[in-house]
Amino acid sequence: KFHIDWDASAAEKGGYEYFMAKEIDEQPRAVADTLLGRHSETGEMTLDEVRLTDQDLRDVDKVFIVACGTSYHAGQVAKYAIEHWTRIPCEVELASEFRYRDPVLDRSTLVVAISQSGETMDTLMALRHAKEQKARVLAICNTNGSTIPRESDAVLYTHGGPEIAVASTKAFLTQLTACYLVGLHLAQVRGVMFADEVGAVLERLNQMPAKIRAVLDAMGPVRELAVDLAAAKSVLFIGRHVGYPVALEGALKLKELAYMHAEGFAAGELKHGPISLIEPGTPVVCVVPSPRGRSVLRDKLVSNIQEVRARGARTIVIAEEGDEAVVPFADHVIFVPPTPTLLAPLVTTVPLQVLACEIASARGHDVDQPRNLAKSVTVE
Amino acid sequence: KFHIDWDASAAEKGGYEYFMAKEIDEQPRAVADTLLGRHSETGEMTLDEVRLTDQDLRDVDKVFIVACGTSYHAGQVAKYAIEHWTRIPCEVELASEFRYRDPVLDRSTLVVAISQSGETMDTLMALRHAKEQKARVLAICNTNGSTIPRESDAVLYTHGGPEIAVASTKAFLTQLTACYLVGLHLAQVRGVMFADEVGAVLERLNQMPAKIRAVLDAMGPVRELAVDLAAAKSVLFIGRHVGYPVALEGALKLKELAYMHAEGFAAGELKHGPISLIEPGTPVVCVVPSPRGRSVLRDKLVSNIQEVRARGARTIVIAEEGDEAVVPFADHVIFVPPTPTLLAPLVTTVPLQVLACEIASARGHDVDQPRNLAKSVTVE
Repeated sequence: KFHIDWDASAAEKGGYEYFMAKEIDEQPRAVADTLLGRHSETGEMTLDEVRLTDQDLRDVDKVFIVACGTSYHAGQVAKYAIEHWTRIPCEVELASEFRYRDPVLDRSTLVVAISQSGETMDTLMALRHAKEQKARVLAICNTNGSTIPRESDAVLYTHGGPEIAVASTKAFLTQLTACYLVGLHLAQVRGVMFADEVGAVLERLNQMPAKIRAVLDAMGPVRELAVDLAAAKSVLFIGRHVGYPVALEGALKLKELAYMHAEGFAAGELKHGPISLIEPGTPVVCVVPSPRGRSVLRDKLVSNIQEVRARGARTIVIAEEGDEAVVPFADHVIFVPPTPTLLAPLVTTVPLQVLACEIASARGHDVDQPRNLAKSVTVE
Repeated sequence: KFHIDWDASAAEKGGYEYFMAKEIDEQPRAVADTLLGRHSETGEMTLDEVRLTDQDLRDVDKVFIVACGTSYHAGQVAKYAIEHWTRIPCEVELASEFRYRDPVLDRSTLVVAISQSGETMDTLMALRHAKEQKARVLAICNTNGSTIPRESDAVLYTHGGPEIAVASTKAFLTQLTACYLVGLHLAQVRGVMFADEVGAVLERLNQMPAKIRAVLDAMGPVRELAVDLAAAKSVLFIGRHVGYPVALEGALKLKELAYMHAEGFAAGELKHGPISLIEPGTPVVCVVPSPRGRSVLRDKLVSNIQEVRARGARTIVIAEEGDEAVVPFADHVIFVPPTPTLLAPLVTTVPLQVLACEIASARGHDVDQPRNLAKSVTVE
């Protein structure tokens, strides 16, 4: 079993102005650590603790992901991957809502609980509710031996190391990584993907830390842009498919840290209401899908960019290297390395984290300790 | 078959300053018209056009609701009612996202498409995608003979009459009503509710127009409050359970019409991020569940009100008449008549519509024609 010791030195800032800046920069290593040792020589994937049989996992006919805040956005990405790879219907729900409605659960339901601390009270209560209904529970957590993993039937630890800044960054990327691993594990156990297919995706996952590093190494212009955006009244974020939760996460970071109006939208929803918010100069961050994945999705997002630009928006476009078609409609382009469609959030989220951190810093806020917020929410 | 003729006079403002104000005021009649003639003497419920057998409906093992904008919020309320009454899992999805991911559908899936105009392109494309996968499609629309009902296997018309204002109001309330009817119809056909149980809920639905009228008759203080809030930088909305989509809808109306930062949250999510937005004086509209439904939900929301108030928020509380426990934590209370838990959105939404209309008007905007928006979005 793979194990990381957390020592005191890791909890120091090590030359960074903020813990958040340090943790953003640690993401290539954190993602690599979450991936380490998952693939046995026989091509089998391994989780950390599994008190479920393969037959239990084959019996699963519905997946619920329950989480709060940033972890909820990781779950929203996971839905796309799990449904695509396994064809099991997957629903993502806010933990605080899950237990007070009447979710339809039974012993062939798998509930995936995502929590960095493993102590998030809403998520813990949702998990207990699920167990009462005989559902199986799998936890994705960063903290060994915390309550949520202890009460779960299976655990995948994210091995991200301690996260000190209140706003999650490396926890998010490692949760995404863990969600991909859960999806692949389900697909493998149920026999819907061949071992070599699972291996091929894992190989691409293993290339992600280097790609995240490449994004981080190119953040100079984003830092300059942040200073420029610090005076904006509001910033909107749009995305489609896996880029939609990335837009939500980018907006949440900015809300948490900069106390600005920042809101993420599914790009297709814009003209059903939110587009009325656009006025000349409103910054809109646009997360563009790869043209190599499902080109119609990319084309729709490019149309959405044109729509907001026609109303005067200042467009900040996150796009794949080589996608020159977006350039004419972008006031600023941030290129990220090409990745498989479902894995793109591992790179497209990074510039949004840097943007939020730098905007908040330019506005003079304590980035690590935003007002009103606690790191782990251990009350309901 | 029940039928309403739309005539030209209905399209005039009839003494109201805005079509929106007129349409808000027409809601008791619109809801009553949607309910009219649904309950036969034998206690059977009737839809408008059904090209599905009862056996088709008994075979349904999954419901997807697809919609955009305000209709999406009606779908979010419907999820609670359909799952509660029928125990069929129900998922609500933005039409623009639905077709571009890989939803798991087959001939025992019922897709409910909600669109006022019946021409919303994203919803129509989602419906066609669902039909290609052999799913059954039921439409909830306001416009007779429009494309979405024509291409559906069953139709429930909302009989709300023409809606001229771009921002939906009576369309929303009639869609909610139609969703309840669909839920009851499914429950009846599948035999999970007795005819007398269905009848009892219908009887309570039939009491809703009078309750909506009572809310409308008490809107004086809300109009005064609106003038006072017109200068606010942002307004937040919180709710739980069926009050969560009401919060989203209240925020959407304010965004659409007043161009203000207005955002709705599941109240349990506040402390996972958005609470950092609260500063002294920030107005927070709180939709409080009935204490007679699931009292723990109401108590949690009262805690959330105390949390935002402790950070200086100005709390505007929508609560049930007689729920005096909220009064000490409310800067403003708007009482609504007691209703069954699941039907509450029919009354709690109304003050939020009036608030948005009056705030936008106080800010000098054309309430009926918000910038950048079209009434029906007939392009993708």
